[in-house]
Amino acid sequence: MNSRRAAVLSIGNEVVQGFLLNTNSQWLARELGDLGFDVAYHLCLLDREEELVWRLKAALDEGLFVVATGGIGPTEDDRTRHAAAKALGLELVLDHEALHDLHERYSQMGRAFPKGSEIQCMAPKGATTIRNAFGTASCFYLRRGQAGICVMPGVPREMKGVWAEEMRPKIIDDFGLNERFFAREIKCFGLPESEIDNRVKHLLPDGGKSPVEGAILVDDAVIRLRWRVLTRSEEGAAALIQPFIDEARNILGDVVFAEGDVSLESTTVNLLRERKLRVACAESCTGGMIAHLLTQVPGASETLIESAVTYSNDAKLRRLGVKRETLENHGAVSEACVREMVAGIARESGAELCVSVSGIAGPTGGVDGKPVGTVWMALWFKGQVHAWHMRMPGEREVFKWRVARTALNALRLTALHGKPPERPTFHVTTVDAK
Amino acid sequence: MNSRRAAVLSIGNEVVQGFLLNTNSQWLARELGDLGFDVAYHLCLLDREEELVWRLKAALDEGLFVVATGGIGPTEDDRTRHAAAKALGLELVLDHEALHDLHERYSQMGRAFPKGSEIQCMAPKGATTIRNAFGTASCFYLRRGQAGICVMPGVPREMKGVWAEEMRPKIIDDFGLNERFFAREIKCFGLPESEIDNRVKHLLPDGGKSPVEGAILVDDAVIRLRWRVLTRSEEGAAALIQPFIDEARNILGDVVFAEGDVSLESTTVNLLRERKLRVACAESCTGGMIAHLLTQVPGASETLIESAVTYSNDAKLRRLGVKRETLENHGAVSEACVREMVAGIARESGAELCVSVSGIAGPTGGVDGKPVGTVWMALWFKGQVHAWHMRMPGEREVFKWRVARTALNALRLTALHGKPPERPTFHVTTVDAK
Repeated sequence: MNSRRAAVLSIGNEVVQGFLLNTNSQWLARELGDLGFDVAYHLCLLDREEELVWRLKAALDEGLFVVATGGIGPTEDDRTRHAAAKALGLELVLDHEALHDLHERYSQMGRAFPKGSEIQCMAPKGATTIRNAFGTASCFYLRRGQAGICVMPGVPREMKGVWAEEMRPKIIDDFGLNERFFAREIKCFGLPESEIDNRVKHLLPDGGKSPVEGAILVDDAVIRLRWRVLTRSEEGAAALIQPFIDEARNILGDVVFAEGDVSLESTTVNLLRERKLRVACAESCTGGMIAHLLTQVPGASETLIESAVTYSNDAKLRRLGVKRETLENHGAVSEACVREMVAGIARESGAELCVSVSGIAGPTGGVDGKPVGTVWMALWFKGQVHAWHMRMPGEREVFKWRVARTALNALRLTALHGKPPERPTFHVTTVDAK
Repeated sequence: MNSRRAAVLSIGNEVVQGFLLNTNSQWLARELGDLGFDVAYHLCLLDREEELVWRLKAALDEGLFVVATGGIGPTEDDRTRHAAAKALGLELVLDHEALHDLHERYSQMGRAFPKGSEIQCMAPKGATTIRNAFGTASCFYLRRGQAGICVMPGVPREMKGVWAEEMRPKIIDDFGLNERFFAREIKCFGLPESEIDNRVKHLLPDGGKSPVEGAILVDDAVIRLRWRVLTRSEEGAAALIQPFIDEARNILGDVVFAEGDVSLESTTVNLLRERKLRVACAESCTGGMIAHLLTQVPGASETLIESAVTYSNDAKLRRLGVKRETLENHGAVSEACVREMVAGIARESGAELCVSVSGIAGPTGGVDGKPVGTVWMALWFKGQVHAWHMRMPGEREVFKWRVARTALNALRLTALHGKPPERPTFHVTTVDAK
């Protein structure tokens, strides 16, 4: 384990009571991680001095570097300064230079110095006062061995400004940091987490023996594999991680769709553009979500010609030339229907690659042999139609999400290999490529 | 101070290291507040069993009711079950009924039962197993006096489902909560927060003098006004809040689109169904998002005929009969174009109400006189076309979100009043109803 450990504290009743979303902790945790600190925990606390004192003391006693935000304003319920001083066993003293600056600022703004604002220029004796160019509350910093404390405002914009301009450089300098974490990740789609975990768990060391630490992160059907290493040189770290990425790609093949912070839709659109494949969709159960995802990506207009969101049977007949007999004999959720839909959109649009989907999103609409979650998907490529039958779990929203991403994955795999995949996701129950 | 105190725990390396934003804690803090718990703190912890054990023990020793999320999946690094059992001094045992259910679910999905999944059906001996209809990890609950622990999944959607359907009722029943906060809220669209705040701030007491507490909450362009009161009787509370809602509705008029947890798309679809208005869309810059939002609502098929996502100019010509001269002389982002688009979709679909949009989502594509963010929207109703010009702030994703919701709002207001609105949002810069 790392010898530099940190805790991230957010102080304020509104956050603890749930009336404000705390985004500071995540942001600071990433920053601290990059500086090579192991973040032990995030804690959100009420503006109650006594409790703040003992929680701060506990963190310092554990040897943690505490990064605290909030509770340093001028009002009576701002207790962070007092609590920090008590936890450190120090007196709270006025920083005359900070007070002078604050007087200057008010006079420059043409406003009177508000009564009671002196408190915003106070810090525990011996701490370094840190300038806040983004607000009126001055900040402070104090180190004790590997432990210590830094205190910043709770308003995200102010906090980020103070951190970047003053606090971060101060920490780097004062801790003499020449090592930091470097991370790389790959993203996967088409296999369940448990299956990916089974296949690559030997590539995910916990950092105990290996300098490289690996983790599996899940964002619904998108699985991320992430490695990081504490390093002095980014190139060295990248090279250390490379074998893990190579081996994972080797094992997982085209299940890996990207390296880094790239979405499935972005990978798909960029690959389609690269291969000069124009695409068109015929959507029923996804209700426009496939096109919506494609058009989240700048440059989608270079590949997407159109999507016919034919939600009603009437629209399927009119827009895609689906035959009335097909709907009567097989229903809209059928292999025959998605085949006619995809052929129709291909004919109409002239696109090189087309996808169609029809399914039962629920909560109602399931029938015998076609329960809620049933999906048929078809792909048109080079005059050939391929169709898949799927059973998608999940409620309406998740269902659409998964079906739409499976369609994207079918487009991606087809562009990648120059031919349709055997199955675009593990949810496919039968594969049928007449 | 309240005798019922709670702590909210989020467990997972990704959260602590800052790779996932923790939204669960805020959500749960609000819910616990409504149940009359004083939330003492939020804590985010790593998947490290030892540390989890002593932090959980410390919370229980403090007499806190611990609501924990995350770390209950099937993989080796999911340690929350083990830690909770140890902190409680109990053995971890298999719930055979839960295991049976899980086997059923996998067989219904037509998938093999994944190796190692039994752990997801284990709970500390004596705890109540709580069903998770939203995922594969079963949950549990155990009370000890005023303290206790409940454990739920980390995936927000799953957690919220389990909380609402199982955990919340269990807590209310088991704690015998007969006094709790009762809340009602209304939702607004079309005016900025500052404007709404100005108009209704006298209706938002802080709870000091009045038994009713009011708040304004912002979720991007959707503004929520929320009132709550601590009560034993929900009817009494509902009646206390009623005058606030009446007066706010009186002041804000049709800016209020719903009471309670109802989305704009849901209100819109239900109103369209009620008025027996079938709808069709012609989308360019929203790329299918209008249809996607409409089809998030069960029953959308009763009103939505189709959406023609005509992303390319070619599709606008072919699918909607937009004239080549119109595109050449005015461009695709023009009043003339959206008027032809909406007339085209009306003619094709036969819908009673149609909407079309064309705009510049960015980040590129802005030109002189038509910067990024420029939007034209047209509405077809009873043979008349109404068009609006807008300037929408925000990056690509936010832009699409706002334009799509403005289109929904235009549909809603038209259905509500039986005629198109003067302006469906304050972002409209000129109103033109030739």
